[in-house]
Amino acid sequence: MNPLVISNIIGSGLCLEAVFFAIPLVCALIYHESVLPFVIPALIAAAAGFLLLHNKAEEGGMHSKEGFVSTGLTWIAWSLVGMLPFLISGTLTNVFDALFETISGFTTTGSSVIKSVEDVAKSVLMWRSFMHWIGGMGILVFMSAIMRFTGGSQMNLMKAESPGPVVSKLVPKAGSTARVQYGIYTGMTLFMILILLLLKMPLFDSICITFGAAGTGGFGVLNNSCASYTVAQQAVIIIGMIAFGMNFTFYFLLLVGKFRAAFQMEEIRLYLLIIAAAILTITVNLLGQGGFTSISWAFRDAAFHVGSIMTTTGYAIDDINQWPRLSQGILVFLMFCGACAGSTGGGFKISRILLMARGFSRDMAAHLRPDIVKKVHIDGKVVEENVLRSTGTYTFVYITITMLSVLLVAFEGRDWPTTFTAVIATFNNIGPGLGEVGTVGNYAAFSNFSKLVLSADMLIGRLEIFPILVLFRRNTWTRF
Amino acid sequence: MNPLVISNIIGSGLCLEAVFFAIPLVCALIYHESVLPFVIPALIAAAAGFLLLHNKAEEGGMHSKEGFVSTGLTWIAWSLVGMLPFLISGTLTNVFDALFETISGFTTTGSSVIKSVEDVAKSVLMWRSFMHWIGGMGILVFMSAIMRFTGGSQMNLMKAESPGPVVSKLVPKAGSTARVQYGIYTGMTLFMILILLLLKMPLFDSICITFGAAGTGGFGVLNNSCASYTVAQQAVIIIGMIAFGMNFTFYFLLLVGKFRAAFQMEEIRLYLLIIAAAILTITVNLLGQGGFTSISWAFRDAAFHVGSIMTTTGYAIDDINQWPRLSQGILVFLMFCGACAGSTGGGFKISRILLMARGFSRDMAAHLRPDIVKKVHIDGKVVEENVLRSTGTYTFVYITITMLSVLLVAFEGRDWPTTFTAVIATFNNIGPGLGEVGTVGNYAAFSNFSKLVLSADMLIGRLEIFPILVLFRRNTWTRF
Repeated sequence: MNPLVISNIIGSGLCLEAVFFAIPLVCALIYHESVLPFVIPALIAAAAGFLLLHNKAEEGGMHSKEGFVSTGLTWIAWSLVGMLPFLISGTLTNVFDALFETISGFTTTGSSVIKSVEDVAKSVLMWRSFMHWIGGMGILVFMSAIMRFTGGSQMNLMKAESPGPVVSKLVPKAGSTARVQYGIYTGMTLFMILILLLLKMPLFDSICITFGAAGTGGFGVLNNSCASYTVAQQAVIIIGMIAFGMNFTFYFLLLVGKFRAAFQMEEIRLYLLIIAAAILTITVNLLGQGGFTSISWAFRDAAFHVGSIMTTTGYAIDDINQWPRLSQGILVFLMFCGACAGSTGGGFKISRILLMARGFSRDMAAHLRPDIVKKVHIDGKVVEENVLRSTGTYTFVYITITMLSVLLVAFEGRDWPTTFTAVIATFNNIGPGLGEVGTVGNYAAFSNFSKLVLSADMLIGRLEIFPILVLFRRNTWTRF
Repeated sequence: MNPLVISNIIGSGLCLEAVFFAIPLVCALIYHESVLPFVIPALIAAAAGFLLLHNKAEEGGMHSKEGFVSTGLTWIAWSLVGMLPFLISGTLTNVFDALFETISGFTTTGSSVIKSVEDVAKSVLMWRSFMHWIGGMGILVFMSAIMRFTGGSQMNLMKAESPGPVVSKLVPKAGSTARVQYGIYTGMTLFMILILLLLKMPLFDSICITFGAAGTGGFGVLNNSCASYTVAQQAVIIIGMIAFGMNFTFYFLLLVGKFRAAFQMEEIRLYLLIIAAAILTITVNLLGQGGFTSISWAFRDAAFHVGSIMTTTGYAIDDINQWPRLSQGILVFLMFCGACAGSTGGGFKISRILLMARGFSRDMAAHLRPDIVKKVHIDGKVVEENVLRSTGTYTFVYITITMLSVLLVAFEGRDWPTTFTAVIATFNNIGPGLGEVGTVGNYAAFSNFSKLVLSADMLIGRLEIFPILVLFRRNTWTRF
């Protein structure tokens, strides 16, 4: 392993974070709030960054291993510095709380330990929502888009940070792919802010809510999340969340005029199909339970929460603890599904579901007719057998981490729905679960130990296991 | 597909079932109970069996597909006839209840809808427990052991019915493997009955409890399951359950004198390690909670329930709803693990966990050093890549079936712990779960729809998905 390469990457990351503190800082100046919560961490980040960049690595030292390790460590470094505004502003006083809230921000989870966000300084809320935006598309993907790395480095970083079973390069060069992705992302973000402004949402809310939807995060700026926005504003949020949960290859294909190819993407089709089926079933189920006096009301509630959970955002307009069991169950099921690969969403990813389902169907055919062995196809292309195999082991480890985390949190003795959904809502980067961590609850009551476990789950979930687990592997540190 | 081959297999199966009704019939004669509940189904099974055997299939018509289809259909046919004693004796009056109880018996689940087993005729209880014994090692494995099939047929049947990622032939011929397995199985069963008799357990209890432990089923003959047996008797039950949850290859290796190879089996080691770790953790957790006044009491409770759940048996001596959350969580975790492949136990199987964990570890190394690709080894042998791949898709479908079943049962609106553990306790062939289906509860209160879903889960779980899913595949019936 090449430690200089890694320290250079972390150093660049911290310098970048120092720059990003300008955003909440401007907000603090506008609202006449203290600028210290952002000036101090910016100075610390810059100082640490320059220190790590002092000794330059030679060219060509970045391999797969360095890519994974530096991705994991950069995220941890960002989180450690990113939590300082919460502590310095006095929003949170417990270090574990601040770390939880920050990791929840960067990983676009949106689980919160703050009981009343309306009492928090606007600049702190802006930082909280901005973390979603930058974490959604990726910290290192952003660095790849704006910086120049030595040959091959960018691909190794993007491989480690981008969600999904395979990384799709939109254009031949990794750096250009990152620029295209952030270009589309920024364009869509600005467009959504504009629409919300046209619908008379205040500017501050428009920006923060859009950051949360774009990164599929879920931190709100009102205590009731999105319940008090107008129906039209909620409709825009629903469409926005679903749009940001789609594979960005779809938008790239649209941009270059390949409409047919875009709409024939099997992942996009399955994603929209699951959303439609879930909305329909929950609408019927809600109407059957009573309490909902109109179809449009039930439909809006269903569409909002399905869009919110499936994309792993986590905004809410209703208390889902009051919903019938079947509807709750469907939401929990969607928590596992997650959004598309190559989107800003978390979870298991639709493309993995597609891969595994096709793989199983092929295996079943092979069991029945061992003499005929077919290949698995997606979007008309053959899927490599080792992709199927590694997606299988990923599935296993994904479930194993879920179960072990449930055991660790169960130690605290809360009821099962709370314990279970707290883990899957954090590991899949969603936000709210059921029970005490439902849409009207939060994570404040958990012990420091549980908060640490859930924080680790958020990081492991966002980075899709490898870049964090690799840090705990002995061989990573002993064999150079 | 060759329908005659399939009907011949089902016909042989039904004739065999007719013969097996002799066991409860003898019991009915001894206890002066009605013999009709067994005479009538025996006549029906024999008549249907002879009808299906009337037209003989030609040699060589049994391929993989016929193996899977006839395994699935034979199990369904056995269950339809096997439920008649419950209905004719008046033990159960609802057809869905009788079907649930019967499938629970044959699949060695042990989930019951009977509220007070002490009020049920002894001959009916004997049939109920015998179903565990024959279902544990396998109906078609038994047929393979005693009947002569056309070339290659037996292997295709055993492949479909035997649990685990690969079928290990102990000796070159499939029929001989089946005979060796049933030989060991019968010997161990008789030995356990003898020991329990020596410890002064009544003969009837000794036989039924041993049948349940041998098949890792769990139907008891007392309303409190095993709570009122002596400590020594309970100790024998614990050891018995754990012994029958071990891969029978272990006993075969012992029999042929290969002691070193037996104790070096990695699946056996991991199995015993998990059991030991779980017992230790639960003992400490129970003592910490209070209520348990002595270490030996906590240890006995922990050992009994860990042995019972890990082997997917389901006997109980305590109300685990009163246990602390962590201990409950560990038991639920063990429900997923299941016993060894090649044992009578259900669940995911330890060998699959071993395979997937090794596969993931290899994938992680391959991610870090793509230039070096190693093979996965178990017991010193290379694991074929397609075994790893198909175990991966199996994992995915296993979790998917669990989730979809939870949704279907959630429709009923019971609390989450009940809904969730009802599904995993039936799908993994365990028996009791938590909440209403805990060790002091039962499945009587569920709707007919839920009972049907859970019955299907038991069958799919016992036969490890393929033989049941294949019946619902269009290609199975259209392409001959």
